[in-house]
Amino acid sequence: MQTTLQQQIAFIKEIDKLKYIQRKTKLFNSDRNENDAEHSWHLAMMTIVLAQHSDKPVDVLKVLKMVLIHDIVEIDAGDVFIYDTLKKHTNTDEELVAAQRIFGLLPKEQAEEFIAIWQEFEDGVTNEAKFAKAMDRFEPLLQNTSNNGGTWREFDVPYQKVYDKKKAIKQGSGVIWEYAENLINESVEKGILKIKTNQYKLTKPL
Amino acid sequence: MQTTLQQQIAFIKEIDKLKYIQRKTKLFNSDRNENDAEHSWHLAMMTIVLAQHSDKPVDVLKVLKMVLIHDIVEIDAGDVFIYDTLKKHTNTDEELVAAQRIFGLLPKEQAEEFIAIWQEFEDGVTNEAKFAKAMDRFEPLLQNTSNNGGTWREFDVPYQKVYDKKKAIKQGSGVIWEYAENLINESVEKGILKIKTNQYKLTKPL
Repeated sequence: MQTTLQQQIAFIKEIDKLKYIQRKTKLFNSDRNENDAEHSWHLAMMTIVLAQHSDKPVDVLKVLKMVLIHDIVEIDAGDVFIYDTLKKHTNTDEELVAAQRIFGLLPKEQAEEFIAIWQEFEDGVTNEAKFAKAMDRFEPLLQNTSNNGGTWREFDVPYQKVYDKKKAIKQGSGVIWEYAENLINESVEKGILKIKTNQYKLTKPL
Repeated sequence: MQTTLQQQIAFIKEIDKLKYIQRKTKLFNSDRNENDAEHSWHLAMMTIVLAQHSDKPVDVLKVLKMVLIHDIVEIDAGDVFIYDTLKKHTNTDEELVAAQRIFGLLPKEQAEEFIAIWQEFEDGVTNEAKFAKAMDRFEPLLQNTSNNGGTWREFDVPYQKVYDKKKAIKQGSGVIWEYAENLINESVEKGILKIKTNQYKLTKPL
């Protein structure tokens, strides 16, 4: 029979694997892929820096919990690129099974709390979930614009696809969305984001 | 004249560099060095999982801010190994200059808040700082014991040095310290932590 602390430490060891899950997106001004642990840390930093711009009052501690844990299911389910059109990238059965296994390493009450927070993030309905999702969309926008188009160019993602995904930022913060929308428009002007692409690669398996 | 948001985004881009700062410690069951961003994410996760074991009541949001930002000064000042006996590894003038430059990218009020939180962590006096430091000492203990001695063996660090550094855990949590002390003692029994080492390499420059 494991003690509470032993269960928690088993979880702490297991989630080390998040450091091996590679995202498609590259670090700022870089060719090196970001991993999910680095990404989660960056979203947490963005949350404490930018929380004042949330349109609605948010419980910052809850947003932090969301962004810190939001990708942990990818330890089992893997990272699916947001512009992938063949695979659903969110809320899949596979992710739910992963959440139950990984958060299930924790003591029961804590496991339930973490699964509920992850589900709340995925549902995207509460103020906290909207702000957390805004952060999750905003970081790769900053990265791609610092990387001469980054994954947009690498995978021939057209303007409208980007715009539609990034609009989620508006649900969290009008001020950040205004900045983001300008960045997207500037990217089109600079030619690093194309209105039409010859071949939208993510319609085929990578 | 930069707007508040522009200043904040300049900071968010700058701190991406934390992902390149390599620690001496390796990931769990691994030969791959951990970087500071991954380490900070892991401490944040440990904080939300283990906060209930703090001996004193803590403001979890403040502890999270501490562990998320505690190593950002290393972007300029570099990572100094905790068992290094030639270089001070904390609270140096170099780190203060780094804090002023990097946090100074933020709007004035936020810069002051972040510098104060970093300083509070470094001073290690408040309940929040004690718990944050406990997390910072506990993670590499878990890593080294999962890595057959890890940096203890790599740098011939003897038992007493390890024990003296890890004792900081006791300031944050008696329960976690009890677990940690057992781990240290077991490590001696297993021979992955030596009472005496022939050559304590960190007394010489690396």
